[in-house]
Amino acid sequence: MKLAELGEFGFIARIRAAAPPGPGLRLGIGDDCAVSEVTAGELLLTTTDMLLEDVHFCRDWTSPRLLGRKCVAVNVSDIAAMGGTVRHLYLGLGIPADMAVAELDELLAGVLEAAADYGADLAGGDTCASSGPLVLSLTAEGTIADGDVVGRGGACPGDAVYVSGSLGDSALALRELRAGRRPSAFLASRHHDPTARAALGQRLAREHLATAMIDVSDGLLADLGHLLRASTCGARIDGAALPLSADFAAALAVEPGLFPLALSGGEDYELLFTVPPAAIASLARVAETETIPLSRIGTVVAGAQGVIVTDRNGGVVASPPSGHDHFRRGV
Amino acid sequence: MKLAELGEFGFIARIRAAAPPGPGLRLGIGDDCAVSEVTAGELLLTTTDMLLEDVHFCRDWTSPRLLGRKCVAVNVSDIAAMGGTVRHLYLGLGIPADMAVAELDELLAGVLEAAADYGADLAGGDTCASSGPLVLSLTAEGTIADGDVVGRGGACPGDAVYVSGSLGDSALALRELRAGRRPSAFLASRHHDPTARAALGQRLAREHLATAMIDVSDGLLADLGHLLRASTCGARIDGAALPLSADFAAALAVEPGLFPLALSGGEDYELLFTVPPAAIASLARVAETETIPLSRIGTVVAGAQGVIVTDRNGGVVASPPSGHDHFRRGV
Repeated sequence: MKLAELGEFGFIARIRAAAPPGPGLRLGIGDDCAVSEVTAGELLLTTTDMLLEDVHFCRDWTSPRLLGRKCVAVNVSDIAAMGGTVRHLYLGLGIPADMAVAELDELLAGVLEAAADYGADLAGGDTCASSGPLVLSLTAEGTIADGDVVGRGGACPGDAVYVSGSLGDSALALRELRAGRRPSAFLASRHHDPTARAALGQRLAREHLATAMIDVSDGLLADLGHLLRASTCGARIDGAALPLSADFAAALAVEPGLFPLALSGGEDYELLFTVPPAAIASLARVAETETIPLSRIGTVVAGAQGVIVTDRNGGVVASPPSGHDHFRRGV
Repeated sequence: MKLAELGEFGFIARIRAAAPPGPGLRLGIGDDCAVSEVTAGELLLTTTDMLLEDVHFCRDWTSPRLLGRKCVAVNVSDIAAMGGTVRHLYLGLGIPADMAVAELDELLAGVLEAAADYGADLAGGDTCASSGPLVLSLTAEGTIADGDVVGRGGACPGDAVYVSGSLGDSALALRELRAGRRPSAFLASRHHDPTARAALGQRLAREHLATAMIDVSDGLLADLGHLLRASTCGARIDGAALPLSADFAAALAVEPGLFPLALSGGEDYELLFTVPPAAIASLARVAETETIPLSRIGTVVAGAQGVIVTDRNGGVVASPPSGHDHFRRGV
């Protein structure tokens, strides 16, 4: 079916029928605003991320379902990075004329599937025609107990720097796709279908284990730089301690020049956080029960001299490239 | 200056420096999420609207400042239509390569100026490059006392149908622009720089005068249709009672065929609401103190037979065209 036959309001009715309301939502899709409750003692967390065709994704390289899932995951990742729990999603869609209703249904199914994975509902949005690219703009609201928020600005000298999961997989997948090659299923999934570390972020916040936290979306060094600037600190990072997946390590063994992807590649959606020495023992327990590898990759140091990355022999890795900048490097 | 020189993070720092935090905002631009407070006894209202170049606006016909202002007004209008007060704004920007920093500064100035007009702050957002059109995606959060929310579904047979301000001005301005003519300053301002009826909406909700409310964005008949479907009612509308501005009336005198623009033209951003007979006297007092004309244009009737529009002689206006549909009619 073509969207022109269904019409804007037919399409909205279709979304509404498919989107069950979650707890705390008084009024969802179908009025001028969504109406929701915030429990006393909780704070509201809000984040928004736009995914633009030919900038953030190519329709040829992914599927509408994965695109819908990713769109949710990248927003939930921001809420996880404050330690919060996602509650409501609002989806803005700019739809090019060539998209079929079947593709939109798949996109929506991906959004709803990922929303359910993280316990969120689709509470509202806006749908319109696009004269150019497919545009996805998702806003996510979450909540967190007052007093548990983990910002970027709390790191202290002596804190250990930790990162979850592995680094560089998404960037390596993108490099393969751009070169016209097919990334491994693992790498492709890390790029097209990232997992937000929702439970981990909530636990670190609830147990007050992290002094500062950010998600790795622009690349480890860029995001660590954001965290350190907000904390007015520097850091020493041990390049040999960066967690690498088996697929990344195998590629690196063949092509040692890939290492900068682990330092600066974007879209890992892992959590990067700082932990005071006294909390490190508790952290080991978290890593075990959450079954996510947590790697200590360095230490926060006094002074705002930025990040120093050392290699296996203690030498300084020469001026590591910074992460993705939408305007400096273009697409 | 070009955006490539400033870079993404330079641009974000510029926005952050210009955007003062408002009440209840614990943490604004510069972390993974904004963090805000919701007072006990209040509900959260959330709405999102996307403005896409060549669909919602042409950069040749407006200025970046007005575009920024309009982007805020259309969202605040949705919050006003529930009776709420806007608090925080989140701006997603997809920026084409040809936009200068000076234009972006103007756009941002317009957003911040309008935010200040309505008492909101810019609490977060996302900036990225666009391979195609300029994309603005704004999400607004507001609050309202629990018990005061005015939805679309509360209209009852016998309620009077009211609309604020005048109808059709924005659509007439757009018609002039599309024909290559210059609309009057009044009409142009109604199209490019609409005012959300924020204080009116809040007052109607607080004093429990409206049983149902919606803002006129898709056109009077389309939006009344949404309200009536949600209320499972119909309505009789007196075509001769539609409020018309002096400029619209003058154009109509020359070209009677313009009348459907008042019935079905979009983007008026007036409030359309239903009032029980017992509340009509109080409403007159509101119109006086808010200094906005409020016009009674019809009556809610039982049964879901839709809207019947009668002309000056009581005849039925033949099948009035419905409002804007993004997918049925394209741009």
